[in-house]
Amino acid sequence: MAQHEVKSDLEIAQSAKLKHINEIAQVLGVEVDDLEHYGKYKAKLPLHLIDPEKIKKSKLILVTAITPTPPGEGKTTTSIGLTEGLNRIGKKTTVVLREPSLGPVFGIKGGAAGGGYSQVVPMEDINLHFTGDFSAIEKANNLLAALIDNNIYFQKESLGIDPRTVKWKRVMDMNDRSLRSIITGLGGRPGGNPREAGFNITAASEIMAILCLAESFQDLKTKLGNIYVGDTYDNKPIYCRDLKAQGAMAALLKDAIKPNLVQTLEGNPAIIHGGPFANIAQGTNSVLATKLGLSLSDYVVTEAGFGADLGAEKFLDIKCGYSGLSPSAVVIVATVRALKYHGGQCLKSLTTPNLGALKAGCANLEKHLENIAQFGLPAVVSINRFSSDSDEELDFLKTRCKELGAHVALSEGWALGGEGTTQLARAVVETVENFNGRYTPIYDWNSDIKTKVETVAKKIYGAGSVVFQAKALADIKHIEALGLGHLPICIAKTQKSFSDNEALIGRPSGFELTVREFEIAAGAGFLVPITGAIMRLPGLPAVPAALHIDIDDNGVISGLS
Amino acid sequence: MAQHEVKSDLEIAQSAKLKHINEIAQVLGVEVDDLEHYGKYKAKLPLHLIDPEKIKKSKLILVTAITPTPPGEGKTTTSIGLTEGLNRIGKKTTVVLREPSLGPVFGIKGGAAGGGYSQVVPMEDINLHFTGDFSAIEKANNLLAALIDNNIYFQKESLGIDPRTVKWKRVMDMNDRSLRSIITGLGGRPGGNPREAGFNITAASEIMAILCLAESFQDLKTKLGNIYVGDTYDNKPIYCRDLKAQGAMAALLKDAIKPNLVQTLEGNPAIIHGGPFANIAQGTNSVLATKLGLSLSDYVVTEAGFGADLGAEKFLDIKCGYSGLSPSAVVIVATVRALKYHGGQCLKSLTTPNLGALKAGCANLEKHLENIAQFGLPAVVSINRFSSDSDEELDFLKTRCKELGAHVALSEGWALGGEGTTQLARAVVETVENFNGRYTPIYDWNSDIKTKVETVAKKIYGAGSVVFQAKALADIKHIEALGLGHLPICIAKTQKSFSDNEALIGRPSGFELTVREFEIAAGAGFLVPITGAIMRLPGLPAVPAALHIDIDDNGVISGLS
Repeated sequence: MAQHEVKSDLEIAQSAKLKHINEIAQVLGVEVDDLEHYGKYKAKLPLHLIDPEKIKKSKLILVTAITPTPPGEGKTTTSIGLTEGLNRIGKKTTVVLREPSLGPVFGIKGGAAGGGYSQVVPMEDINLHFTGDFSAIEKANNLLAALIDNNIYFQKESLGIDPRTVKWKRVMDMNDRSLRSIITGLGGRPGGNPREAGFNITAASEIMAILCLAESFQDLKTKLGNIYVGDTYDNKPIYCRDLKAQGAMAALLKDAIKPNLVQTLEGNPAIIHGGPFANIAQGTNSVLATKLGLSLSDYVVTEAGFGADLGAEKFLDIKCGYSGLSPSAVVIVATVRALKYHGGQCLKSLTTPNLGALKAGCANLEKHLENIAQFGLPAVVSINRFSSDSDEELDFLKTRCKELGAHVALSEGWALGGEGTTQLARAVVETVENFNGRYTPIYDWNSDIKTKVETVAKKIYGAGSVVFQAKALADIKHIEALGLGHLPICIAKTQKSFSDNEALIGRPSGFELTVREFEIAAGAGFLVPITGAIMRLPGLPAVPAALHIDIDDNGVISGLS
Repeated sequence: MAQHEVKSDLEIAQSAKLKHINEIAQVLGVEVDDLEHYGKYKAKLPLHLIDPEKIKKSKLILVTAITPTPPGEGKTTTSIGLTEGLNRIGKKTTVVLREPSLGPVFGIKGGAAGGGYSQVVPMEDINLHFTGDFSAIEKANNLLAALIDNNIYFQKESLGIDPRTVKWKRVMDMNDRSLRSIITGLGGRPGGNPREAGFNITAASEIMAILCLAESFQDLKTKLGNIYVGDTYDNKPIYCRDLKAQGAMAALLKDAIKPNLVQTLEGNPAIIHGGPFANIAQGTNSVLATKLGLSLSDYVVTEAGFGADLGAEKFLDIKCGYSGLSPSAVVIVATVRALKYHGGQCLKSLTTPNLGALKAGCANLEKHLENIAQFGLPAVVSINRFSSDSDEELDFLKTRCKELGAHVALSEGWALGGEGTTQLARAVVETVENFNGRYTPIYDWNSDIKTKVETVAKKIYGAGSVVFQAKALADIKHIEALGLGHLPICIAKTQKSFSDNEALIGRPSGFELTVREFEIAAGAGFLVPITGAIMRLPGLPAVPAALHIDIDDNGVISGLS
């Protein structure tokens, strides 16, 4: 119990004695010659290390969570802590995670490399440019944008693209609200053709989603070529391949496609690669990274964004659907304080014991557990313990989980590292060893689009019905005309509720889910039903974190969180 | 003579057998432990290897050129070739160069890593993301942009910046004309405040100029803090430091500030770092890279952008003025065909012998030689030989150079590598060994601004007079009010002529140079008198090079040039 410790994440990370990345590679049985070093503590791994036979034998553990609340639940911290714990009890385990976006680092949220004594390091590098993957994705995305506008500019070479139909936005890994909605091409003839345009944050690029689903360079190029760009004036669809852009884009991604090896604070292997949005994309690290982890160790711990209704559903129905992977256990992260929030306790008093609120809030956890069971997978509830949790509350929660048929364990990875997660690790191992099946998809990709959306909405979210607005119905017609109706769906919905109304916390049911429109991610290979406003380029707060970040004359960074 | 060889630059580069970067470091006496590896063939060098005593003893050779012409002269190729030649004749030499911009790679020009048998490798990496320096500079630049707009957005924290005065543009390393002139901040309240804005290419960022003049992290932060952003509504200047942005910006540059070690085709050391524009900035690699080269070897060959009137003048008056460096010899690259072009021969017939045109065109070379003499430095003319050059033309040119008091040698680095440059290398060594002085600045930084511009215009360009337009006069007043009148000047002028009229090739004289306005690079530490339209964000051509670039399933790139 050390939530009261005064050391910051950065101080803990900077005081760690890191092993040379060659030592981490050695643990995985990787030859030093196979590494592409990025300094002493980071390396890229080559794709030829992927071993399909070993993947079949290794165990994949998916970490997800109850519906997110303002105080946070700690999925990344739990994933890293669990990895330390599994290694401590003798299981050769790698944690495989997403790369953090630079945007939030300078905004409010801070970095995303775990916390306390469950972190991946070097923390500053991982949170800043890391190995340049985000930059490469940004360049590939923006090269396509430049080629689109260039094609519109040169009448002679023109494909006849109607600029008003161009869906492709530029991206930048920066919280910069001023770029969300812009007009480009001003300044007369030399400036191009004026049109409405905008930027998204790099993690929201379809290129990111593609990189995270690609299985090889060839597959990457095919997927890039399939990106749907817009239409001609006579309504013919234009794809990236029509612009002949995919070769140069793939060349820009030649290193970014390779997963990155780093280490946890306790010197265990961590593979960090890719970071797609969890609402408009699949929200998990790359398939290649997961496969590499499974090829090189016996257990892989990975996480999916947001709550299990979004992250785990997309992990299973999209990522596993495409890659053939299947987890052997699902860890649901819960906290006493978050469940009390779901039970109606107000944010300011969450540290005050309140068994009534906890009991009520458990309905949220219960639905997530039911959902994991619908996928045919066994669940372990990891209670991320805080010093404010009363014994009575913890006992109640543990008992309730057991009643619901789930394994349960306390996790104290934040305060204690692997020492605080061996109990959780044992629960996970027991679960994994007792399960020999595979997940069952929640819907059939070959169903019609409306059925697919309704199935997820009703079975996973608990909706009573789904309303498709006029734009959504037109989009479905368009998608079917393009021959893309067979793609899986990636529903964009608030992460704060099972429903599309973020005020409905706990376990709402029987509600109406409204689909406003669809987006087409033909390159990544899914359709995105939009149920609300999606923020794809955050802004900075009034006092951005950037103002407190500094570097001294020895190159030591301070103020990162 | 192998201009007729069929191998492309990329094919030559890809067929080279590269040494591990540790071997290159060993040649320089650098411990492997001091390297930050980026794969097997690239590494960053730590700043602590800079040795002020060794720098004083080593020799710096500046490669510059006659006034550029459409067929190109080959400065980078000569710099690399000369390095091979110097090493062949037993001089421990490092070539220190700028990093290429990604923009032209996808446009017309192709990469910038030398050519033929005088290249730096790995060519694909150097031309694509390299070690991420450009991306880091882009992020630092755009973080400041986001913080400016964010400060305008939040009334409460506001410094009162008048958005109409904001000079700071965003940057992207991409040829994308549509971003030159844009309106940002649309979309109502959440989108910020609409204003006119735009993007430059990353190489044109003042951050790039700053990085290339910074001597340490502390110096970097000071320079970043000094960036002039715009004015408040009540006309008070706002600097980057007022926004408290310099710490986070410097943190983003923590790796970018370190020079990059690669190798030439013949396995000699090459340090490649920074790439500021040669018109609105100093146009040479970083001071830290030059100093590292001089600390680690006996000879450093470096180059400055454009012709000697721009590149060499800025190299000496700005870079050397700030850093204390001084070259021991200046190599002027000339070609028979370019001189014939300056002598009036038309572009299409440059391969036809024409002694008359050559004689006339030599006036251009003569003026550049006079200029180098004004700086008190010895010059060597390097004739970059082409198969179309007649013996008569070559003999005439050699004789003419000698009459003008310059050393002269043929250079065949493109076709033959170091074997083709030993003659040039010997001429350079002889020159260096006979010179013990330092350069003399062409103007005194403490003169008033007009005098500084007039001095360069008359002494170096050959102008008869300088006209300062009304805007320029107002800018001078403003600069003096800001207390920045003591800064050196960095004249933005067409590279195609000594004058500000690109049609005046050869050796124009007595012309009127018109200064339209000034820009303030208070962070980098110079003033930019603008004499014409400067393109800071190129567009793509009708058929961009990007369409021919590809990567195969083994990650091998084709189509780069």
